[in-house]
Amino acid sequence: MQEKPLILVTNDDGITAPGIRSLIRIMNKIGDVVVVAPDSPQSGMGHAITVDNVLHCNPITIDDGPQIEYTCSGTPADCVKMAVNEILNRKPDICVSGINHGANSSINVIYSGTMSAAVEAGIEGIPAIGFSLLDFNYQADFKPSESFIEKITLNVLLDGLPEGIVLNVNIPKLVKDKMKGIKICRQANGFWKEIFDKRKSPFGKEYYWLSGEFVNKDKGEDTDIWALENGYVSIVPVQFDLTAHHMIQKLNEWDL
Amino acid sequence: MQEKPLILVTNDDGITAPGIRSLIRIMNKIGDVVVVAPDSPQSGMGHAITVDNVLHCNPITIDDGPQIEYTCSGTPADCVKMAVNEILNRKPDICVSGINHGANSSINVIYSGTMSAAVEAGIEGIPAIGFSLLDFNYQADFKPSESFIEKITLNVLLDGLPEGIVLNVNIPKLVKDKMKGIKICRQANGFWKEIFDKRKSPFGKEYYWLSGEFVNKDKGEDTDIWALENGYVSIVPVQFDLTAHHMIQKLNEWDL
Repeated sequence: MQEKPLILVTNDDGITAPGIRSLIRIMNKIGDVVVVAPDSPQSGMGHAITVDNVLHCNPITIDDGPQIEYTCSGTPADCVKMAVNEILNRKPDICVSGINHGANSSINVIYSGTMSAAVEAGIEGIPAIGFSLLDFNYQADFKPSESFIEKITLNVLLDGLPEGIVLNVNIPKLVKDKMKGIKICRQANGFWKEIFDKRKSPFGKEYYWLSGEFVNKDKGEDTDIWALENGYVSIVPVQFDLTAHHMIQKLNEWDL
Repeated sequence: MQEKPLILVTNDDGITAPGIRSLIRIMNKIGDVVVVAPDSPQSGMGHAITVDNVLHCNPITIDDGPQIEYTCSGTPADCVKMAVNEILNRKPDICVSGINHGANSSINVIYSGTMSAAVEAGIEGIPAIGFSLLDFNYQADFKPSESFIEKITLNVLLDGLPEGIVLNVNIPKLVKDKMKGIKICRQANGFWKEIFDKRKSPFGKEYYWLSGEFVNKDKGEDTDIWALENGYVSIVPVQFDLTAHHMIQKLNEWDL
């Protein structure tokens, strides 16, 4: 690569979250960084886009780093669309999203705003990675993640990714010397067992908080959940062709 | 099946949209219907869930049909979680979502609230189908869709669907005798070429509307786009294990 790579950085926790500030610092060592990130937290937004409201997008300076930054009123997927179509002069060499405060392993990839930004970049033909740390704490320690994130990003810049594939990287909450390395994994088969916490407002009206607990149905040792529980950083290659190709033949037997 | 099937109906256009009213009428012929649907339009919400706000859910009567209905303040995925965990006494035999006013073929499956409801039901272990008509018009004619929707629903009730798979059904905007039948398809490889319409508010502040045009990169005659353009109802089996399994071996060659 002759010139420095152009790196688009985004996230779903909002542009001031410690996770994205960490990611920006790592990327500043690798290339020219442009940040386009939500102006407020967008967790659980899945692959939402803004179709019935307007979007605002403005330059902003948050620290004294060399990166250029924009804050956007939309979802993570909106931020990527905005960056590629309105802000950047050329297609970025890579898009990195995160570092998310909390896991996006197993089925959480479906609900994740962090991963939807990476997937949106992938749809636009840009190699992309979502990074998540298994620590919901706002003051999480992102330091032990840094060398893994740098290494994985450099590998993607060097080797590229095939069309239609982005990476979902999750990092265990461990001090550096407890981390065992990196494992390539498949998405564990799990789901959330919901708990609706039913309450009454001061005005007597019932309302709910959605919470729940994650259930892993998958005993495989090749899954992201297994890797994370055993001290490894997990990488799952993620595709956005959702076709269950192996089911087409079976459906063709139906009497339709 | 000895008792009538229990059918959960939802959508993303909101509980009063003509599309879901049509779907309810069709389902009333097949089984006992419970509707849990958003109280306002949720188009483009992807697989969003409500994690940082409360949810409201209330019984409602909209017409004189035999169905039981609830309206919910959340996203389509929230509605399914609420139905399964708080409203229904037993797991429904099927969940149908739609009829969406507009296409959810090709990459639109990723952005679709209609399909996110079906996927959420699939994650909860319920056979599920999303139905969409290629007509954005609020007053679209859903009549020609009815027999196809009934037939596909009855097939799923009879044969079930394997774990991890839901159906994405799109219906062309045609009069009944122009419809050629049903085709089992794969998701066409396409994307949206965004157009950001930049405007100024009455107060001089710049803002954007996100719009765009769909680009189909895929010449295959086995895709949903091809089927729809040629007068067929398309069915794509959709999975929510997003792992690109074929990429795992390649990634294992990386120096990580």
